[in-house]
Amino acid sequence: MTKTVTVLENILNANDRIAASNRAQLDQADVFGLNVMASPGAGKTSVIEKMIAGLSQELRMAVIEGDLATSIDAERIEAMGAEAVQINTGGNCHLDAVMLQEALPHLTLEAIDLLVVENVGNLICPSNFTLGTHANVLIASVPEGADKPYKYPGMYRGVEVVILNKIDLLPYVPFDLDYFRQGVEILNPGVAVFPLSCRTGEGVQAWLDWVRLRVTVSVADKIPATRG
Amino acid sequence: MTKTVTVLENILNANDRIAASNRAQLDQADVFGLNVMASPGAGKTSVIEKMIAGLSQELRMAVIEGDLATSIDAERIEAMGAEAVQINTGGNCHLDAVMLQEALPHLTLEAIDLLVVENVGNLICPSNFTLGTHANVLIASVPEGADKPYKYPGMYRGVEVVILNKIDLLPYVPFDLDYFRQGVEILNPGVAVFPLSCRTGEGVQAWLDWVRLRVTVSVADKIPATRG
Repeated sequence: MTKTVTVLENILNANDRIAASNRAQLDQADVFGLNVMASPGAGKTSVIEKMIAGLSQELRMAVIEGDLATSIDAERIEAMGAEAVQINTGGNCHLDAVMLQEALPHLTLEAIDLLVVENVGNLICPSNFTLGTHANVLIASVPEGADKPYKYPGMYRGVEVVILNKIDLLPYVPFDLDYFRQGVEILNPGVAVFPLSCRTGEGVQAWLDWVRLRVTVSVADKIPATRG
Repeated sequence: MTKTVTVLENILNANDRIAASNRAQLDQADVFGLNVMASPGAGKTSVIEKMIAGLSQELRMAVIEGDLATSIDAERIEAMGAEAVQINTGGNCHLDAVMLQEALPHLTLEAIDLLVVENVGNLICPSNFTLGTHANVLIASVPEGADKPYKYPGMYRGVEVVILNKIDLLPYVPFDLDYFRQGVEILNPGVAVFPLSCRTGEGVQAWLDWVRLRVTVSVADKIPATRG
């Protein structure tokens, strides 16, 4: 038992060390990194498509796509005109810092402002592996049901933003929004929640505003005080 | 690299050995075991509720509920009048044979015909761990999208049945049923597919018929040839 714990700690530390090096690379190039996590089918790629459509006039974006297999999502991203790098995890249930480290050289970091990393569709394992990005986003979706924060607490705890996608389905499925929000608030007090629908566009603007502000503030933070 | 593979193989073999012992226990007691897997929110508990409502007059059922945390699902099952045992995995992303082994003594196996095991909501990891049940069922759902077989092939390969739940949402979300069926067929030729809606009840009867037949045949198989 003790042995297992030790091994796990070593693996996590190694991951964290590489994550710190990824973060340093992003900071060096003034790139804001966003790690997008969700269940399979909650709408990660759709949310990223909306970001490309709404932000690519002002922010230079690239996307890293994590999948067990196929490049279906990377092709969707490229069809939107953004640069995409595909990571096929070969069955691995989450991205880790090493995978991101291996993907970064495929991008010209100096040429982008925002790097979106789409994690593997999984509401459990990705929360255990930091990548070195600046913020974690969790996308929940209405048809999954309002009890998910209670049942998958680890994922809801470690994020800066919760998007609730597919609100256009609220008339057709039972979903107690108050119960959902309460669960989110218990686990992650004060976390930003954006209810939206990628299908109808409702609520998308507020999410894009958050991203715009976050990327701008992040870059402004790095301007040396002596400058200007 | 070689070292990692060896460790993984040892773990899997240990799991398989315990799974075989679980299977022997179930067979000894003439219990048919069903392992139900799905993404978070695809409707595992709802499908099991339908099974209890539709089959409990003819089959004696019990349910083992696997969750990271909470007993929300076990309470739903007990509210339907069936016996439920809760396994809280403490953050572990799948059930394994050891967890089932530890849960079995909490049931009187001689008093049941059908044991349903609800796995942790995860479309990746549970497929790597046999439990010792007789059949694996995967529940997909319409709002997840039709590309899931292609993106999560491991899970679709190892199952005897695919349920496609939430077909009542087909008018409201884009879902290419042919594309979905094609993906399932490529990965798992001839697998039974049951499109249904737990909400409206459409298609549920065909799934219950499959269970009824499978449990009956399984029990009949075990009747010694000399009998009668």
